[in-house]
Amino acid sequence: MVTDARFSTRMRARARKLEAASGVARGQFVPPGDVVRLLEAVIAPGDRVCIEGDNQKQADFLAQCLARVNPDRVNGLRMTQSSVILPEHLDVFERGIAATLDFAYAGPQGERLFRMVDEKRLTIGAIHTYVELYARSYTDLCPDVCLLAAAQADRAGNVYTGFSTEETPALIEATAFKDGVSVVQVNEVVDKLPRVDIPSDWVDFIVESPRPFYIEPLFTKDPARISDVQVLMGMMAMKAIYARYLPRTINHGVGFNTAAIELLLPTYGQELGLKGRACRFWALNPHPTMIPAIEEGFAEIVYPVGGEVGMEAYVNNKPDIFPVGPGGTMRSNRFFSQMSGHFADIFVGATLQIDTQANSSTVTSGRLVGYGGAPNFGCESRGRRHASPAWLAAGAEGYAGAAMPRGRKLVVQIVETFRGRMLPTFVERLDAWDFQEKGFFETPPVMIYGDDITHIVTEEGVANLLLCRTPQEREQAVRGVAGFTPVGLARDKAMVDRLRERKAVQWACDLDIKESRATRDMLAARSIKDLVDWSGGLYDPPSRFRNW
Amino acid sequence: MVTDARFSTRMRARARKLEAASGVARGQFVPPGDVVRLLEAVIAPGDRVCIEGDNQKQADFLAQCLARVNPDRVNGLRMTQSSVILPEHLDVFERGIAATLDFAYAGPQGERLFRMVDEKRLTIGAIHTYVELYARSYTDLCPDVCLLAAAQADRAGNVYTGFSTEETPALIEATAFKDGVSVVQVNEVVDKLPRVDIPSDWVDFIVESPRPFYIEPLFTKDPARISDVQVLMGMMAMKAIYARYLPRTINHGVGFNTAAIELLLPTYGQELGLKGRACRFWALNPHPTMIPAIEEGFAEIVYPVGGEVGMEAYVNNKPDIFPVGPGGTMRSNRFFSQMSGHFADIFVGATLQIDTQANSSTVTSGRLVGYGGAPNFGCESRGRRHASPAWLAAGAEGYAGAAMPRGRKLVVQIVETFRGRMLPTFVERLDAWDFQEKGFFETPPVMIYGDDITHIVTEEGVANLLLCRTPQEREQAVRGVAGFTPVGLARDKAMVDRLRERKAVQWACDLDIKESRATRDMLAARSIKDLVDWSGGLYDPPSRFRNW
Repeated sequence: MVTDARFSTRMRARARKLEAASGVARGQFVPPGDVVRLLEAVIAPGDRVCIEGDNQKQADFLAQCLARVNPDRVNGLRMTQSSVILPEHLDVFERGIAATLDFAYAGPQGERLFRMVDEKRLTIGAIHTYVELYARSYTDLCPDVCLLAAAQADRAGNVYTGFSTEETPALIEATAFKDGVSVVQVNEVVDKLPRVDIPSDWVDFIVESPRPFYIEPLFTKDPARISDVQVLMGMMAMKAIYARYLPRTINHGVGFNTAAIELLLPTYGQELGLKGRACRFWALNPHPTMIPAIEEGFAEIVYPVGGEVGMEAYVNNKPDIFPVGPGGTMRSNRFFSQMSGHFADIFVGATLQIDTQANSSTVTSGRLVGYGGAPNFGCESRGRRHASPAWLAAGAEGYAGAAMPRGRKLVVQIVETFRGRMLPTFVERLDAWDFQEKGFFETPPVMIYGDDITHIVTEEGVANLLLCRTPQEREQAVRGVAGFTPVGLARDKAMVDRLRERKAVQWACDLDIKESRATRDMLAARSIKDLVDWSGGLYDPPSRFRNW
Repeated sequence: MVTDARFSTRMRARARKLEAASGVARGQFVPPGDVVRLLEAVIAPGDRVCIEGDNQKQADFLAQCLARVNPDRVNGLRMTQSSVILPEHLDVFERGIAATLDFAYAGPQGERLFRMVDEKRLTIGAIHTYVELYARSYTDLCPDVCLLAAAQADRAGNVYTGFSTEETPALIEATAFKDGVSVVQVNEVVDKLPRVDIPSDWVDFIVESPRPFYIEPLFTKDPARISDVQVLMGMMAMKAIYARYLPRTINHGVGFNTAAIELLLPTYGQELGLKGRACRFWALNPHPTMIPAIEEGFAEIVYPVGGEVGMEAYVNNKPDIFPVGPGGTMRSNRFFSQMSGHFADIFVGATLQIDTQANSSTVTSGRLVGYGGAPNFGCESRGRRHASPAWLAAGAEGYAGAAMPRGRKLVVQIVETFRGRMLPTFVERLDAWDFQEKGFFETPPVMIYGDDITHIVTEEGVANLLLCRTPQEREQAVRGVAGFTPVGLARDKAMVDRLRERKAVQWACDLDIKESRATRDMLAARSIKDLVDWSGGLYDPPSRFRNW
């Protein structure tokens, strides 16, 4: 059809790019050796380029090719990518190919990213939470070019993303329906796909990558590395929060603290009577440490944002639990699962720093790691309107005395009072302030604002901020569980005692948990091998986790 | 593959249903006359059944068939559907086929729904906002059977949802990956689709409907029906809010108040210098009343939750503005666009009742209309972390004096002080309380909580709640714009005067807007015919809107 020339500039830009690419690609399929030339043809200076870097699955071959384009031809790009994981993700800035970065998470590249921002070799657009960045991909950050990773394509150009579908569907839709150009690296081209995840007509170019995409087993926590202290914290969280509010729907973080809780469900959770009453529905990746809880009937449904290396057979074997579909394999979905977690009864996660008003951040001195899903999972879901017992109970505490009764979400931070190298987790002032003062950000980059947090769990005890009525009480409740950190030592002892009487602060002794019980013996599995056994041999851990 | 019998009960249930259906359907395609028997085969008593009832596109043929199944065979269903629009949506409860309803919006059926709940012939699970209901479809409300509507299917069973894609992708994914059974009614079966929206292997059954699906032109507001008062309110909103904060990203409601604003952009918005500085990115259906603003360059991108009857050619002609993709036609997406709106700088919408703390609700005496997207669009996006001038300016006002600076979303309610029949919009006590007291809901069904609302615009003026520091000030700011309603007449005049000095209340005279200018002459289009002319003849309004 004829389009209005004033309002089809993107369509014409796309046509020019495809024309330029016609000298490189014959049809949809591009040989790996021609990808650099293809990218030079389809990426214009200043383009917004979205590269798939979930925190697990990486479009690594395309990232390498992008880092090799000629910066005289391709430069000034605005990269929009959920995660900055690979060295090549920052190499493009070193080489002058890209200029601005919008992202959500930068775990392993956090220190280098900080240095590059500090040296003004890279401008941060913003740090986002995942769904926020996806949502902007449809309005003010529509991609001009999208570089994606998938498991397979068929010869008609249909794509099977497979188990680790993650964010691919959200990104390809943003691109295909805004006259962007998409390039997908696939592990192999086959005659017949297990199922179609992305229809051929949404995809511009496909390259069979020289090797399978890189994927990090980020959600595998070896039970052997869980400490007694983490067991104690898990038991306190379960007694003071899980057994008290009985959250039906849940999202956990990815650390050892929450892995401990997963492995305590079949033991201590059983003792507390949680089965069938709490933690029934999960927005969560297929954590191997969930296997005992699944086998014992604690989790009825687990809806994942991504996959997890080695969990394929176990997951596909349990379609009641996981979203297994056509072809008999799972499809994860980062966007939808993020929203399932957003509307859950409870979020439990960790952080690097907490201030005395419970504001928390992972943006600490010398590192820019970003937030990932935490701001979305860990904020009050103010659009939620369906009730559940946990939501009502938390609301009755938090809005006690308010004119309008309402429910609210439980948002729990579970941290040890010191993180490594004698660095206190609790601080009077977040490092985030320094980043604002340096001009990196307009406001301090807070991961979760204090007024969204309902509980803090440390090895000292549990602070229930829902029961605090003033900023002063909140502050003393935080100090009350901050142990021997300077923040903890500066507590007002009389006020903390009064908060303990009201159960706004509960120490381990107040919770009647014998520390002698809080050992690794409480864990339903104490090694990766135990998890394999629990799985009936279906869990196939990556070799780095095998020591038998 | 072999699955674990303990964890594949849904897969076996599905196999039994497909086996039962094999006597009715040969392959994927089902003749219309066999659909009632098909539904009796694939729906078990007590199943969760999701029926596509967007507020526009309706799976109406499937709804009629469901209402005709034998209640001795199919009964006790839990219906999960975003909208209750058609009589058949409630007939299934009258006939004992369904028992429980989870929904988001029930506009035209609101009064009948209220009566049925009151007479205990129907149990409400919960009223949701759209994305909340979709999110639950992946965890605790996974559908057993899903009944959907689309434009076309090809003979291989691939589906083209087309222009009005709306919620179909979110619902089919929830079903196909949880061993549910899906049935899709299509307007026609063709040899070649414009594009594939849903791959064949995700779809169980397809029926070519005897007539095209019902779709309501819900977002068409005839400019001829916009009043001078609405023009005045629109001008006040634009001067006091749009020009002050310069929101870049925006979502509007669907009423005449916001239609007035759309039609004022090319006139009064031009005068205020908003072009290129405000309202550039929209999460919004293709409202016909947006045509002049689009033609004059005010809107750069519009990303819709649904389609709009008559706007197809106009939309497809403007791919820079709308998400036009493969096949040259638009694809809307209710889930993603809802999230784009959630993370926007501003939401502007209307309601039926507002109390003195600015809590608002559409659940009023004798009606249960639900909320639709308002709780999601109209709540503070607490997971948002990217800054914009409007977000920072609103945060600087709303969190002035707070220890931690942050941004916030503008949430505006634009209402006349009286709605029809001399019913005041402003009330001392929301009717929502009655619904809680009757036991319908655990907490009063509030659409938007007062502490999420930043501004209220009436024909009297604008209340800026960000500038109010106490509940007493908020109350007087609300009363200050409530005019001659009892709530307005009970205002504390001295306090309102002080709020006016601080611009927490601004009356029309304070805003320096001459009421004599605030007439329909300010609208860029004053009739549907004007809109057709603005569109260069591309807008093709439904016949009910044509009077020439």
